[in-house]
This record gives sequence, structure tokens and C-alpha cells, in this order.
Amino acid sequence: MRRCFSTALPQRRRINIFRKMPHFMKVKDIGEFGLIGRIASALPPPPSHVVVGIGDDVAVLDGLNGDYLLATVDAQVEGVHFRFETTTPYQLGRKVVAINVSDLAAMGGAPLWALVSLILPSDTQVGCVDELYRGMGEEIQKWGGSIVGGNVSKGQSGVAIDFCLLGRVPREKVLLRSGAKKGDVVMVTGTLGDSRAGLELLTRDHGAVSPESRAKVLESHLTPRPRLREGQKLAEMGKVTAMLDVSDGFLGDLHHLCDASGVGAEIYLEKIPVSLACVEVARCSGADPHLWALTGGEDYELLFTVPARCVEEVRNTLAESTGVPCRSVGIVRGGADGIRLKDKDGKILSPSRATKGWDHFVPS
Amino acid sequence: MRRCFSTALPQRRRINIFRKMPHFMKVKDIGEFGLIGRIASALPPPPSHVVVGIGDDVAVLDGLNGDYLLATVDAQVEGVHFRFETTTPYQLGRKVVAINVSDLAAMGGAPLWALVSLILPSDTQVGCVDELYRGMGEEIQKWGGSIVGGNVSKGQSGVAIDFCLLGRVPREKVLLRSGAKKGDVVMVTGTLGDSRAGLELLTRDHGAVSPESRAKVLESHLTPRPRLREGQKLAEMGKVTAMLDVSDGFLGDLHHLCDASGVGAEIYLEKIPVSLACVEVARCSGADPHLWALTGGEDYELLFTVPARCVEEVRNTLAESTGVPCRSVGIVRGGADGIRLKDKDGKILSPSRATKGWDHFVPS
Repeated sequence: MRRCFSTALPQRRRINIFRKMPHFMKVKDIGEFGLIGRIASALPPPPSHVVVGIGDDVAVLDGLNGDYLLATVDAQVEGVHFRFETTTPYQLGRKVVAINVSDLAAMGGAPLWALVSLILPSDTQVGCVDELYRGMGEEIQKWGGSIVGGNVSKGQSGVAIDFCLLGRVPREKVLLRSGAKKGDVVMVTGTLGDSRAGLELLTRDHGAVSPESRAKVLESHLTPRPRLREGQKLAEMGKVTAMLDVSDGFLGDLHHLCDASGVGAEIYLEKIPVSLACVEVARCSGADPHLWALTGGEDYELLFTVPARCVEEVRNTLAESTGVPCRSVGIVRGGADGIRLKDKDGKILSPSRATKGWDHFVPS
Repeated sequence: MRRCFSTALPQRRRINIFRKMPHFMKVKDIGEFGLIGRIASALPPPPSHVVVGIGDDVAVLDGLNGDYLLATVDAQVEGVHFRFETTTPYQLGRKVVAINVSDLAAMGGAPLWALVSLILPSDTQVGCVDELYRGMGEEIQKWGGSIVGGNVSKGQSGVAIDFCLLGRVPREKVLLRSGAKKGDVVMVTGTLGDSRAGLELLTRDHGAVSPESRAKVLESHLTPRPRLREGQKLAEMGKVTAMLDVSDGFLGDLHHLCDASGVGAEIYLEKIPVSLACVEVARCSGADPHLWALTGGEDYELLFTVPARCVEEVRNTLAESTGVPCRSVGIVRGGADGIRLKDKDGKILSPSRATKGWDHFVPS
């Protein structure tokens, strides 16, 4: 009950407006997405030049010469998203850029300009900030954008990096999460669960894992590669009906896509793409690689839907132009069906709370 | 020595890249502006569509239909910028918008779209977030913008709000801090020091201060009013040669303007506009109101330069169109002169470290 219980004025009579509330609900009681829904419903409706506003990962804005302007922001907080015991500042810099580029990739967009807001304890080493910026500078340049401004503030504990990225997308090519139709096929690029396996290796020591597998999953976790060219290619083809990137976990993000599109989905467990490296790490730690693939999060692969007749064309074109495979993992159903997960015998598995994906505020 | 001393890989042999550095300089050793300079010089030069990049409060970007796109970000961190013992979440919401609108005002711009990144401990009350958004929503709407997106993350201690604001300015009207010329007159809107006086009342109790003065200075500190119309009017007139808003303290910001313009300045102490309310609070607390006016910060008044022949016209037009007074407080000198402060007898006062304005990382 420690927060927001006092108010400012008058000086010698501190009253408490929160005492008037019927109950003292906390953020962890409603979770990240409950909070975002509450925020979105309380704000006035945005003007017409806001094509997509609060609730999506990226705002779509009308105003740039001919194209839509895209705007997204994501934070990395010490002790929550990273620890300096398991990442270098250089790697962290690369990652914070990559995860924002991934958000633009999921719309078929391209990065332009970034603002970086750093919150730093005053005993932070300058070399740490240098390395952080070296990572951010290299990664943003790789994807065609540049850092154009920001802010540095003192913080009381831990480093926090807020990375705000602006980009553009041709107006007629923009891909949203809201266009999936019943009968569409659910597809995903690359493999899922590698980042979760990498996190496992950073948390617990598994000496039996081969160096190749170790390197692969650690790279997936520490310096993920956003699917920028892949997202742009998918947008260019004009066949994809809805898309987002897998950051909260495949099932969590599939929920977001289904909610936005007003549809349900049926997912076939044996079709979920899992790498041999992920399987190896999971085996060494006694975990289920499919659970990691479904709920691990931070994969930064693209999750999208296409009409059934276009699946072959989309798969082939993407593989030929980018070298990245994509797989059909399920089918879009009517909204009332929700999300159903089937094993190879057709048995329906019930996703428990643990398989709903990542929520910042809800203890898992 | 606690930060950034470990690195990620390989798992069982943590090496430390910072050991290779010749010394372990910390952020507090070089300060906020030293750090920003270091960051700016290490990044690759931005492409040509970045008109103003790192180092200014606002990035100026070429791409919006006909106008320049403006982008700025500012953070409010609990325990550093605010305490919930002395501000309500509603007031805090209004303030974080106002200080960003003020940055656009200083360029003659107008707000369009905002992204909010919140870092919240999970025991934060939902009512606190509601109130924060009510404040942000009301304030941004007042100035013609809207909140279009953002992010919420868990934090480990304290609330932090990163507010990223995008806006526009007609290409031929944009005002930068870099255009001041020798012989120009230094001018400032409104009065300085009120916010510092408000902070004083929130920190220490001064029972003798009149209710009117108390209300005025507390409002200046808790819910400052950005000079948006004034900034736009000044830009529209086309007479102002350089402008910024007073956020780090008058002398600190004058340093920024002089550095960017390659000039010096002579300031006349008795011309610095100080309100009766500020004088009253300072008297009650045994402080010098002029020191508060010169270095207090968070005034969000506009500091600008105009050719001497335009001073009367600028003052009259601004007063007639907005009701806000502005005053001549000094004169722009050659770069070698630095900043000189003169008292009413013409005696040169030496600004000490304490009069250089606010730096996040340097203890005052």
C-alpha cells in the first residue's frame, strides 16, 4: 500500500484521493494488458490522422510524404529484462534496437529515426554507456535507421533504456494484426523457443550442451535478429492478412492477433518449429521444448496469417528472396472457438495460465 | 564499482571488457552534458534528412508533408524528478506533457502525437495510473496533440515515465538555438524562479507565505504552463534569431544557446524578471530570489535573441497577441567573452559552479 497514497496540496494537510476509491486494485491484479485496455478506453478517441493508436505495438500515423509514419517504444529495465551479469552493454544496445526494429518489421515497415531515453545511476561507468551506444549505433545502422536524439536522466536504482523508433511503410502495404479471416492459415518464420533456451543457459549451468547449440540459443536471446527484410517481403507480396512479431510468446501473441481480428485459431503442436539446439538445451534441463516454443517469448519471429490458397506461394517466395523458412502451424477459426491446441493424435490440449504468454505484472 | 563489471559469455568464464579501459570514469565525473557530447561524437553522422540531431532538446526531421517533423523525449523519475508525497499522479501527468510541449514551443512547433513509456513497480495502484493518464490526456488535448501509443514495463523501484512527443513546424519558421548573433538582445518571457520557489515550499514549510504567493509558485512547479502560443507567435514573426526553453536554469540554458551559436552574452542582473511571489518565498526562507531565477530551472519560459531594432516590435506583438510579457535581460557578445553577469553598478559577478544550471549527474 506504499504508492500514491499522498497528494501534493495543501502543504500541511495531505489528503489522499485514492482513499475515495472503492478498492485499492494494483497493477499486478489486472496485468499489463488489462492496464493497457483500461488506458485505451479512458483516453479520448484519437483524431483521424491516427490510423492505429493505443493497443497495438506500433502507432500508425498519417502525415509523412505519401507513406505512413510508424512509431513504437520499448523499454529494457535492469533486473527485469536484463542483468549485467549475463549481458554486455554492447549486446544490450544491439538488443534494444532489434526488438523495436522487429515491431516495425511486423508491419512491413522500415526504421528511420530513433530517440533514446536513458535512466542511469550516477555511478554508472562511462565505458558502459559508450558500449551501449556502440551496440545501438551498429544495430540501427544495419537496418537503415539512425539515432537522432534522446534524453539522459539520473535514476535511483538500475539502468533503464527506453528506445523510441520511428519508421515508414507504404500506405497500401501496411500490415496490421487485425485482418485475419476464418479459414486463413497461421504461419510463423524460423524456429521458436531458442531465446527461452538461451535464457535457461544464462540462468542455470548445463555443461552437457554442445558448443554449437549453446552459441545458437545464446545469440537468439542476447542479440536477436529482427525479421526486417522478411516482414517487408511479406508486406510486398500482398497476400498476408494479419501479422505481428513474437515477443510475448507464440500463444500470447496469437491471442493478441485473434483478439484484434475477432477470430479464433487451431494450432497443431507437432507443426510448431523447434530447433535441435532448443531441444538439446530443454533435454539437459528436463524441460519441454514445445512449452518453451509456445510460451517462452522474445523469439522476434513473424507470426502471420494467409489465405490457404497462398500458402505455397508465400513460403516459396519468402525462402527464395530471404533464405528464411516459414511454416504452417494451424488454421484460423471462428471467434467463438478461442485458441485450441491439438497434439498429433488430434487431442485438444487446454492451455493453462502458464501457456498464455508473458505478462509483466502477473507472477507466473 | 558495482556496474557493468561482468559480461555475458562464455558462461563459466566471465571476463570483463571494462578492465581494459585505462580508467573507470563514472557518469557523475563527466556530467549529463559531457555524456551527451561523448555520445554525439561517437555516433556516425546522421543522414541528410536529419536537420537537427543529438545535442538539441528536439530532433528536427525532414519527411512530413511540407513541414518538419519534431521529436523529443523527456523522463520523470520518482525520487529524482518527483515524489508522490508532493505531487498527485494527475499533476505529474500534466507536468510530463507540459515540459515536452515546452520543448516544441521553443522551436515554434505544435504537438501532434505522443508515446508514453511507463516503468511501474507491480504494487502500483491502478488508480494511480488512471490519474496519471487523466492528467496526460487533458494536458495533451489542451495543446492539440494526442497519445497514440506506448509501453508499460515492470520496474524494481519507483515509477518512471518517459514521454516521447512528436510535432510539426513549418519548414521556414523553425527556430533553433544556434542562430544568435553578436549585438542581438537576449529576451525572456514571463518571470523566472517561481518553480524553484514552489519546490522550496514543497521541501520546507514556510507558514508566513501568503496564500496567493503559495498558490502561484506551487502551480509553477507542479503544473507549469508551456509557452506554446508564445513560441508559435515568435516563430511566425520571423525576427527571433535563436530560442530555447528554460528547463535547466536560465544561466545553464543561456550557456547552451551561446555554445550552439558560438557567441557570448552579457546579462544585467537587475533586469532578470522575478515575481513578487518568488521574492516573498525567498525572503521567508532566507534565500536570494535572483539566484533562484538564474539557476533554479523548470521555469519553462522562452529564452530568445532578437536583433536590437526588433525588440520593441517583438515585445508589443507578443503582449498584444498572447498577453504574455517579455523582457530584455542582456546582450549577445562575441564568443570569446563567455557569459558575463553584471549588477546594477556594472560590476561583473563571477558565476560560480552553483550558477551554471542543472546537471543530473553532478552533485550541487
